[in-house]
Amino acid sequence: MKKQYLSNLNYYKICAMNTNYILTFSCPDTSGIQSKVTSLLYKNFAFLTDVQSYSDIDSNTFFSRTVFTIAELSDEFEKLINEFEQLANDLQMEWSIDLEGKKIKTLIAVSKLGHCLNDLLYRTKFRDMPIEIVGVISNHETYREIVEFHGFDFHYLPIEKNEESRKKQEKEFNSIAEEKNAELIVLARYMQILSADFSSKWLGRCINIHHSFLPSFKGAKPYHQAFDKGVKLIGATSHFVTSDLDEGPIIEQNIERVNHSDSTDDFTRKGNDIESTVLSRSVRWYAEKRILINGTKTIVFN
Amino acid sequence: MKKQYLSNLNYYKICAMNTNYILTFSCPDTSGIQSKVTSLLYKNFAFLTDVQSYSDIDSNTFFSRTVFTIAELSDEFEKLINEFEQLANDLQMEWSIDLEGKKIKTLIAVSKLGHCLNDLLYRTKFRDMPIEIVGVISNHETYREIVEFHGFDFHYLPIEKNEESRKKQEKEFNSIAEEKNAELIVLARYMQILSADFSSKWLGRCINIHHSFLPSFKGAKPYHQAFDKGVKLIGATSHFVTSDLDEGPIIEQNIERVNHSDSTDDFTRKGNDIESTVLSRSVRWYAEKRILINGTKTIVFN
Amino acid sequence: MKKQYLSNLNYYKICAMNTNYILTFSCPDTSGIQSKVTSLLYKNFAFLTDVQSYSDIDSNTFFSRTVFTIAELSDEFEKLINEFEQLANDLQMEWSIDLEGKKIKTLIAVSKLGHCLNDLLYRTKFRDMPIEIVGVISNHETYREIVEFHGFDFHYLPIEKNEESRKKQEKEFNSIAEEKNAELIVLARYMQILSADFSSKWLGRCINIHHSFLPSFKGAKPYHQAFDKGVKLIGATSHFVTSDLDEGPIIEQNIERVNHSDSTDDFTRKGNDIESTVLSRSVRWYAEKRILINGTKTIVFN
Amino acid sequence: MKKQYLSNLNYYKICAMNTNYILTFSCPDTSGIQSKVTSLLYKNFAFLTDVQSYSDIDSNTFFSRTVFTIAELSDEFEKLINEFEQLANDLQMEWSIDLEGKKIKTLIAVSKLGHCLNDLLYRTKFRDMPIEIVGVISNHETYREIVEFHGFDFHYLPIEKNEESRKKQEKEFNSIAEEKNAELIVLARYMQILSADFSSKWLGRCINIHHSFLPSFKGAKPYHQAFDKGVKLIGATSHFVTSDLDEGPIIEQNIERVNHSDSTDDFTRKGNDIESTVLSRSVRWYAEKRILINGTKTIVFN
Repeated sequence: MKKQYLSNLNYYKICAMNTNYILTFSCPDTSGIQSKVTSLLYKNFAFLTDVQSYSDIDSNTFFSRTVFTIAELSDEFEKLINEFEQLANDLQMEWSIDLEGKKIKTLIAVSKLGHCLNDLLYRTKFRDMPIEIVGVISNHETYREIVEFHGFDFHYLPIEKNEESRKKQEKEFNSIAEEKNAELIVLARYMQILSADFSSKWLGRCINIHHSFLPSFKGAKPYHQAFDKGVKLIGATSHFVTSDLDEGPIIEQNIERVNHSDSTDDFTRKGNDIESTVLSRSVRWYAEKRILINGTKTIVFN
Repeated sequence: MKKQYLSNLNYYKICAMNTNYILTFSCPDTSGIQSKVTSLLYKNFAFLTDVQSYSDIDSNTFFSRTVFTIAELSDEFEKLINEFEQLANDLQMEWSIDLEGKKIKTLIAVSKLGHCLNDLLYRTKFRDMPIEIVGVISNHETYREIVEFHGFDFHYLPIEKNEESRKKQEKEFNSIAEEKNAELIVLARYMQILSADFSSKWLGRCINIHHSFLPSFKGAKPYHQAFDKGVKLIGATSHFVTSDLDEGPIIEQNIERVNHSDSTDDFTRKGNDIESTVLSRSVRWYAEKRILINGTKTIVFN
Repeated sequence: MKKQYLSNLNYYKICAMNTNYILTFSCPDTSGIQSKVTSLLYKNFAFLTDVQSYSDIDSNTFFSRTVFTIAELSDEFEKLINEFEQLANDLQMEWSIDLEGKKIKTLIAVSKLGHCLNDLLYRTKFRDMPIEIVGVISNHETYREIVEFHGFDFHYLPIEKNEESRKKQEKEFNSIAEEKNAELIVLARYMQILSADFSSKWLGRCINIHHSFLPSFKGAKPYHQAFDKGVKLIGATSHFVTSDLDEGPIIEQNIERVNHSDSTDDFTRKGNDIESTVLSRSVRWYAEKRILINGTKTIVFN
Repeated sequence: MKKQYLSNLNYYKICAMNTNYILTFSCPDTSGIQSKVTSLLYKNFAFLTDVQSYSDIDSNTFFSRTVFTIAELSDEFEKLINEFEQLANDLQMEWSIDLEGKKIKTLIAVSKLGHCLNDLLYRTKFRDMPIEIVGVISNHETYREIVEFHGFDFHYLPIEKNEESRKKQEKEFNSIAEEKNAELIVLARYMQILSADFSSKWLGRCINIHHSFLPSFKGAKPYHQAFDKGVKLIGATSHFVTSDLDEGPIIEQNIERVNHSDSTDDFTRKGNDIESTVLSRSVRWYAEKRILINGTKTIVFN
């Protein structure tokens, strides 16, 4: 059970009136959940604008995402939170209530290929990607200049070719994430394998982009593998990081058409485009609280 | 306010236990709708499996689709319906409660091009399209044989080239639809313009497939128009029929890629494929109660 | 080196003037191929309307597809063929010259799932699929009625659960294909594994549709596998049959989007749609001589 | 007839051996074109790797794109060029021979929306977009910083709200394009209407991205128009600029799915993504000499 809202309560209070909130939760399925939740919201002067709920029979779990408006930010809201906490306890919920549009603190990790990083930098700076980039870490210096040009912190965390160095570097990576209060870590083509400890610590809060259409072509050089197979479509997959490499709940996938005249370079170029699109879409959905984890899968409310 | 459930109540009663129902409604937006509805359902032993609601700010209307299960079909269900009718009155709802999987009675109209008709026949007969085809009407004899082979009624309603004949034929068309208790009329490339009377009588219950990517290329020979423009994508559009030709709330659209080497024949062939897919998808969604009309637009719950 | 044109020469002669021909060939790459071929065609009064050639560096092979028109069918054409045969010998070509629009003799094999079969029947009968269906064979009776309704021969070739019966049945399958002079065998969800002998005999002339996005989810129940993985896209793959099950040069692939609310039934239904589309597209391309085999891959000229 | 190769001949000579060239041409259709061209190439030691030709019946024009390799850059190449010029004269060709991979000099124009510009900057700087950006002009200062950060010239050409200022500014725009020897002008959301003079001067060398799926929604605020119509797909269109606003030969189009819960902001955001992709794809194809103009349409060799 999350209580991340509590520390933010003052923040909510100083926000303007007529603000939208996003409630997301999952809990063991039983009858009356939707009724209890919406009645509690109604009683506390919440006005619902978007409701999506889904009951998964296989896992016997109820998932929900509700957007609601509160007219006035007064003690009423504190009351709503307190009552909701009680209900959440009763129903054994994983839950959070967040301000809609609140930018989530995001730490990006990158190695030598920058197309996903650049796409995120640009969308955050010039478009409306709802994240606050709290820093970029890399085991290479390649993208320091562009990151700093955009006004973000760049952390160079090199790795030597031994296990000790790798462990030390991952520890620094983790420390930066913690110091910056990162709510999300994005592996934007970060070509390092993370430890089981790191993976489980950031479970559900660390997104990776895999440069293939999983579960095909796991491992290295997937576009070369795809080329050798003579496929007619190539794809990319974003997923939550787990200790199981190239696995973890899939968030989004997309594809692009290729043909016999495309070289492995063409495969790679087209693939890079899909990766950027799939990753930035996933980050947006995460920031908008649209993704809920359902065991080894995800629920994505559109 | 619809009361179509009432006549079906006995039908519900004889159905097996543990049946799924689909509640759809729209009503003027106000606070507490979701709470009141789900509380009523909960109190009456309904178990919710899928909830999607959407509040449209522009039209100030609340739309909802809820799938629920009732464990036992007893007087409880009649009580639920009675209570719901009361609430629906209070909230000025357009609503219906339907058995999930209940096949809706569908009348298909076709002229000389049969790809959409055949697709519907096949999906209904050999796949799981949840409709009951109550007949096919046509102003040509072309598809009598295939329709009758599949075991459906074929009604030949020819039209002479004068207004009187057109009116008389439309009247027969309407009579057949009424006699067969059609819940949906599908214009599967029916190349006749329907009167304003007919359109408004079947408003929201008559789907047309338009062989272009509306609003481009309205009117005749859209694929030829598209070819002349040198477009790189062609598309098709399904929509509810209104008295405004080639307009009416759009339900679904899709496209296919074309290039310079495609002839108008190729445009037409590819276009026909998209039409079949878009139309059958729309009919399925309609039968699954996923489509709600919002003025000149549609809400489609996925 | 193919000589399939020779037996057809009289057929060509009786065809009307101004007919289009499709020349396809592949041969070891060297300089001057295109020049020699087009000069020969020009000298023999051929008018070129579409030329696509591709030189594959990896296999050092030149592939070409040329559409040309001959104004008059006289001895000139026989001269062209004779000269071309000489050139083809010199360049060690695999080649064929075919009348554009000539319907290729096609034998379809099906088991219990008929969506691909029906799609092919419909497109051949009512649309413009350029094939002549010389028969349908099946190890089940399920589709006899619909096949015969469309006016095609149905051959029931049951299989008992022993190796001997399987061998005997495959032999009958092969005999029918030979008697009917089938130029193409289409496995339209034919759930039998073919022997290495059969596969190599029909190499490059037997197309299979695989109900998954190869190389993912090989083997049985791919949509269930995909569902368990929580993928967001499902797909289908058509390929030439080789003795290596679920492998063989890929011809075409396509995908459809799925989400968390799709059941395995939904996966299957959407998958079936993609299979039909991908298979019928492949058969069309084959009939139009657009597909050339390049080792374990294909060249598809669009 | 173009002779742009001549001034580049010395450049060719200093290039390394085994270089690829791209020959593109269009000419009135007649028999023997392909034969004459490929024979000339063969005689001059060219090795063909990719040939695509298309004969358009409506315009009676032959279009061709051939990639060839020359082993040695000697006087042979000059001889090839001289001979080709003779043949091109005879056949009344529009033609050019270019080094494959040669970066074309590109001038970009932008107003206040930078997503297309940024995409081009990034792809040119960090990926492999085969253009040389010779400058960016704008009627606003908005993107000076990012353009200069990437190391390109920025030209601020403001416009006052009168015809005289507009004319003067366009003249400066034209002067910069000429001074920089721009081979291509890209209107990357440049919200100014260009004069007929400018349009015809740069005919076939000036690409615009239109933020809608032409021919729908011409004019201002197309995404708002699309929203009001309740469409389910939105798109973008790139085209060559002609004096006819929002017309001109279409190069490429693409679409993205939208639904009822998407706001006009969502329409715009998704639309911006499609615009960037469609425009950068068009620029790449232009640089790779894949686009030939066929009256009011384009031939795009893939």
